Amino acid sequence: MQMTPGPTAVPPRVRERMSEPMPNPDVEQSFFELYDDVCGKLQRVYGTDDDVVVMGGEGILGLEAAIASTVGPGDEVLCVSNGLYGDGFADFVESYGGEPTVVGAEYTEPLDVGGVEAELERGDYELATMVHCETPTGTLNDIEPVLELLDDYGVLTIVDAVSSLGGTPVPDEYIDINLGASQKAFSSPPGLTTAAVSDRAWEVATERDPDSLYTNLLPWRDTAERFPYTHLAANVAALDESLSLLLEEGLESVYERHERAATHCRERGAELGLELYPPAERSAPTVTAFHLPGRAEAAQGELASEHDVVLSTGLGELAGDILRVGHMGYNAEVEKVDRVLDALATVLTA
Amino acid sequence: MQMTPGPTAVPPRVRERMSEPMPNPDVEQSFFELYDDVCGKLQRVYGTDDDVVVMGGEGILGLEAAIASTVGPGDEVLCVSNGLYGDGFADFVESYGGEPTVVGAEYTEPLDVGGVEAELERGDYELATMVHCETPTGTLNDIEPVLELLDDYGVLTIVDAVSSLGGTPVPDEYIDINLGASQKAFSSPPGLTTAAVSDRAWEVATERDPDSLYTNLLPWRDTAERFPYTHLAANVAALDESLSLLLEEGLESVYERHERAATHCRERGAELGLELYPPAERSAPTVTAFHLPGRAEAAQGELASEHDVVLSTGLGELAGDILRVGHMGYNAEVEKVDRVLDALATVLTA
Repeated sequence: MQMTPGPTAVPPRVRERMSEPMPNPDVEQSFFELYDDVCGKLQRVYGTDDDVVVMGGEGILGLEAAIASTVGPGDEVLCVSNGLYGDGFADFVESYGGEPTVVGAEYTEPLDVGGVEAELERGDYELATMVHCETPTGTLNDIEPVLELLDDYGVLTIVDAVSSLGGTPVPDEYIDINLGASQKAFSSPPGLTTAAVSDRAWEVATERDPDSLYTNLLPWRDTAERFPYTHLAANVAALDESLSLLLEEGLESVYERHERAATHCRERGAELGLELYPPAERSAPTVTAFHLPGRAEAAQGELASEHDVVLSTGLGELAGDILRVGHMGYNAEVEKVDRVLDALATVLTA
Repeated sequence: MQMTPGPTAVPPRVRERMSEPMPNPDVEQSFFELYDDVCGKLQRVYGTDDDVVVMGGEGILGLEAAIASTVGPGDEVLCVSNGLYGDGFADFVESYGGEPTVVGAEYTEPLDVGGVEAELERGDYELATMVHCETPTGTLNDIEPVLELLDDYGVLTIVDAVSSLGGTPVPDEYIDINLGASQKAFSSPPGLTTAAVSDRAWEVATERDPDSLYTNLLPWRDTAERFPYTHLAANVAALDESLSLLLEEGLESVYERHERAATHCRERGAELGLELYPPAERSAPTVTAFHLPGRAEAAQGELASEHDVVLSTGLGELAGDILRVGHMGYNAEVEKVDRVLDALATVLTA
């Protein structure tokens, strides 16, 4: 069983849908209608009236495309971060000629709202980035106070909600580019990036007029007659089915199911004497990161080989110290969490 | 029935494979083995010992990534062209700061070998681009004389073989970056770009060290321990199955099947009084472009609505004048061509 924090296991109905013959996404009207349906369903999940676009590429494409489409040479960008992906935004800003200023915090700490305000007073920022759920540390950030502050200063905002969207509410109101991906809480196969894009963000991208094709949001603004390239028809159909499953269940019910699975995971971990990496109040409803200094990789290996349970470790420097249980989308079930924790109990007491 | 020049109809065995649960491409060894298998099978199709990589994105990603990875500001690039995609390489070169020189020819003419030689004498080129099969006009280019000439001058070569690879032999010997895609003659769903990359091309990319992530070939050089992002597991499995089908049939048999389907398509078209757009000797074994000035879009519409036959028109200025029948991969069958031409006969004589 796969209980990684993405890609998640894909439910049978979604896999079956993906195996059907698909319309030609270049010429058949039925594909354009399918794409519109998917975008409409995504608007409901995002809770937005903004345009939603679905690009063909893994989630990181959305992060790069958001930066490539809005950042030009010399632009000062505020990157609010307490994790690997938060820091990664700064790398993308540099790649596209911008000048990032990182307002950082320790990985176990909340986003530094005071630091953001001080920077806004000091610098001349038109754009800021942040991460809702820092998957590598299992942290859900309280981004609303930061977003409200940035709104006061009229700053455009890009948010990576890749591993929270569809599993927990994302406060879209003050977000200009809100990024998701198919293989996280949607439980669709990897291969699609989703973005809710505000009119203001479209204007910035239009002014910037990026040179690239694949990392450019702009050709996605109007796809009524043509996509920038042959779209990933089977993947789009799979995402459509995933979104139908989610909306049939009801968003509130989905979010409660994630909360139950996450709470259960933390409780059963506590019974085993396991410590969370971030404090409980900042642990994500979609992924739990247990702090197992020096033991994470061995535990991961034994869970896979002896118990057929596939988990993730931390990333980068934390690879050896964090073991991560994904309970998102199709995997956000107390019973599945129980099976993982039963196996983990055996591994840790062996 | 879909008889477009890509995406092609996907055979049931490939669709079924795609509907199976997939290993996690970030952490499971079985996915790394699957990826290696796919690259090994692709080496056989390419006929190369060069590294083969499979990136997550539509075919155009390969073209952009090849340029983004090898072209720097001010680099002079020779773009040999007799079509839309040949010209498009020049646009990518400009996007990445290079200075393209297009050695062009009329869309119905062969590549201008004499013009290439004159440019090589005149300029200082380290890189050249060309297209093997110009899908929009159904033209297969004889690229070997151009490649041999470029080899004499020590020029690095990038070839778009997206709509020929797997349907007809591509002369890989003198190609440094040879580009394919999943949804053409492989008959896999759209979403993967393939590239055979020579050591010399890797060296150039290493020197260039591109800033971008998604359009960068370099992180794909060594994927033994990690991919640049979560790979498109279901799409990779589908491509694996497509390649197995192709190799089980045998490459020679596959190429003959394409020749038979193409010849039959041209013959039946001639019986209907239809003219080819490129001369017969340059018509591709994977796609036939009929010249129907002013009538192509109406015919396309009626074939779809009245006969359930989905074809493509030309692109750009040729949209109204060219009707294209794809007979590539799973669709390269005389019987399927017959069904298309039967329907076309009805439409044209109505």
